[in-house]
Amino acid sequence: MKRVYFDYQAGSPVDSRVFEAMTPYFGIMFGNPSSTHGLGQEAKTAIEDARMKVASLIGARKKEEIIFTSGATESNNLALIGTAQRNKEKGDGIVTSTIEHISILNICKYLARQGFKVKHVPVDSYGLVDPTSVEKTISEKTILVSIMHANGEIGTIEPIAEIGRIAHAHGAAFHVDAVAAAGKIPVDVVGDKIDLLSLSSNDLYGPKGVGALYVNEGTRMAPILIGGGQERGLRSGTENVPAIIGMGRAAEIAAQEMGDESARLARLRDRLHAGIAKEIPYSYLNGHPAARLPNNLSMRFSYIEGESLVLSLDMEGIAVSSGSACSSKTLEPSHVLRAIGLAHQEAHGSLLFSLGRWNSDDDVDQVLSVLPSIVGRLRRMSPLTPKDLQV
Amino acid sequence: MKRVYFDYQAGSPVDSRVFEAMTPYFGIMFGNPSSTHGLGQEAKTAIEDARMKVASLIGARKKEEIIFTSGATESNNLALIGTAQRNKEKGDGIVTSTIEHISILNICKYLARQGFKVKHVPVDSYGLVDPTSVEKTISEKTILVSIMHANGEIGTIEPIAEIGRIAHAHGAAFHVDAVAAAGKIPVDVVGDKIDLLSLSSNDLYGPKGVGALYVNEGTRMAPILIGGGQERGLRSGTENVPAIIGMGRAAEIAAQEMGDESARLARLRDRLHAGIAKEIPYSYLNGHPAARLPNNLSMRFSYIEGESLVLSLDMEGIAVSSGSACSSKTLEPSHVLRAIGLAHQEAHGSLLFSLGRWNSDDDVDQVLSVLPSIVGRLRRMSPLTPKDLQV
Repeated sequence: MKRVYFDYQAGSPVDSRVFEAMTPYFGIMFGNPSSTHGLGQEAKTAIEDARMKVASLIGARKKEEIIFTSGATESNNLALIGTAQRNKEKGDGIVTSTIEHISILNICKYLARQGFKVKHVPVDSYGLVDPTSVEKTISEKTILVSIMHANGEIGTIEPIAEIGRIAHAHGAAFHVDAVAAAGKIPVDVVGDKIDLLSLSSNDLYGPKGVGALYVNEGTRMAPILIGGGQERGLRSGTENVPAIIGMGRAAEIAAQEMGDESARLARLRDRLHAGIAKEIPYSYLNGHPAARLPNNLSMRFSYIEGESLVLSLDMEGIAVSSGSACSSKTLEPSHVLRAIGLAHQEAHGSLLFSLGRWNSDDDVDQVLSVLPSIVGRLRRMSPLTPKDLQV
Repeated sequence: MKRVYFDYQAGSPVDSRVFEAMTPYFGIMFGNPSSTHGLGQEAKTAIEDARMKVASLIGARKKEEIIFTSGATESNNLALIGTAQRNKEKGDGIVTSTIEHISILNICKYLARQGFKVKHVPVDSYGLVDPTSVEKTISEKTILVSIMHANGEIGTIEPIAEIGRIAHAHGAAFHVDAVAAAGKIPVDVVGDKIDLLSLSSNDLYGPKGVGALYVNEGTRMAPILIGGGQERGLRSGTENVPAIIGMGRAAEIAAQEMGDESARLARLRDRLHAGIAKEIPYSYLNGHPAARLPNNLSMRFSYIEGESLVLSLDMEGIAVSSGSACSSKTLEPSHVLRAIGLAHQEAHGSLLFSLGRWNSDDDVDQVLSVLPSIVGRLRRMSPLTPKDLQV
């Protein structure tokens, strides 16, 4: 059975070009960048080259503005907790949205317990944050605005340039979670006036266990991991050299290939969408129809549960998810789908296809060849299904 | 020129058996353990197998007591900050030593700024913590005692079983930084009554960017990285699957081979020590002569600077360090060498040979063939050298 993978949002293999770049650093190039001997200095040079490549992908002016972390979750923790701790004399307000990644939402809960005032602006039925809502919610006590670049579950791209302008007009720092967006759509930290931006390596087809936080040089931050003072004192711990080299190469490839690759993925995604819409009645798109990531297709199917679809497709060798992998442990419906106004059962009936570098037309064909009959079978088994769909 | 590496304390290549175990998880086995489909569940199974192997290396009763982190620095941060935050209603006292790793010392400074009362027990001229000092320093307000298993810079092994007994008698949790000790000498969390124990993968010849914290199931902890709730809620962030698999395999090999390998390293180390002591006058051992790690040789040479020796040896293809790699960025002498009572210039005149899995008798021979003449030359250049050594 051919395996089909449409769950790139949960995880991705490492590109073989990336793996090739990393490999020497597991073996002969194993130096510690803090060592003064030659082997250490070679590692240091390689890390600075990777830093430059990541800076280049997001339009940062200086490579020193890139801080390597252990991944997106740590980047988000450093951005929010580090900013809050360092600026608490200035104010206690944090503005974010209702559809941020679960790490942002949980960090905000933690900060609220520490006494910070966190306000969540709502989104419309497409998942769009209205900049006017941010304008109404922000105050002179706001120290940080955190809005994602694009949502990984429903694909919607946020108007971050406008939100950044509002944040700065009120003297707040602007954090953008660009984990789902980077490498798929252009990211421009200078043009969009972004102070802090979170990146994940694996979402760029680089290795797991490494990420980055862009920290604009004027931004006041405290570290959250304390130790030997690596990464300009903002992230202690011996540098994860092979993974950092891998992330650098992954960022370089993403920058070179994004134009063609995003067009290719959008075409596959649109074929998948059109095929599902044509063959499966009562199926609906989640998220914005136009302002969306090229690799994202979130659909809901009336009368059935997404998790049953995931398991049925898994038996056909097709890997998809019913939402964010991070939330799969709970039986709660996705907070993102709830935030765009879906009822409990609608949210539960959603399926996320996240496309990536190794998907092909064959993969789309395979899904289209089995999904309609799976949906039909599950609907026949469901007591909720109206009579006319039971045939 | 043959390259000789005696700086394993700063970093190590990944064992090829470990790399082989990791490799599939960069490619075809790239699932996210939180995903419900088959690919995700395969990753989850593999991680639990790795957790078991790490638990086994340190004698933990349950694999669930192993929390994977991004490395030793994060493990130390989680142990100290996580315990302090969670137990602050119980007390505000922390007891540690003057020769802990720089991450422990800097985390303690951070906690002191947060209002915790940190007390540092001194060490003797061998670097030994006297349990009686701990007994005198601890109080009913002490919530945590943090003492390293063995010191990576001078090799001294601490009497942790006795210190653990004292910590528990006063109701304090006991944290042990076993980064330098694990895989070199037996570690027994149950027998030594350890509540929290930090491990680094790279120090076991596993990959960088991964580590673990043993958390005894009864120990009250708060997380420091917040998000999707992975690792029993104590360490959020998508699991670094290939690195965790690598650390598991590295722990397995360490457990199997430690007996023979530590004896082999001790023999090489003793040959190196004897050769230096014989050929180079005014050279002295740092640390305890007997209660020391088998792979550690820390020597000081009167009248010259360790950093000049590092550079001269580097030109001969020999990589060593003048102390901890983490401290190499500062010009300050090592806090460990100062704590055992060395004067500024003695500490500056120290050289650390840390031996590892790929060292051989040839490596020892090569150092012995060049070091005496290098020391002689540097001494002739030094204005501090007495006349009788200038020849």
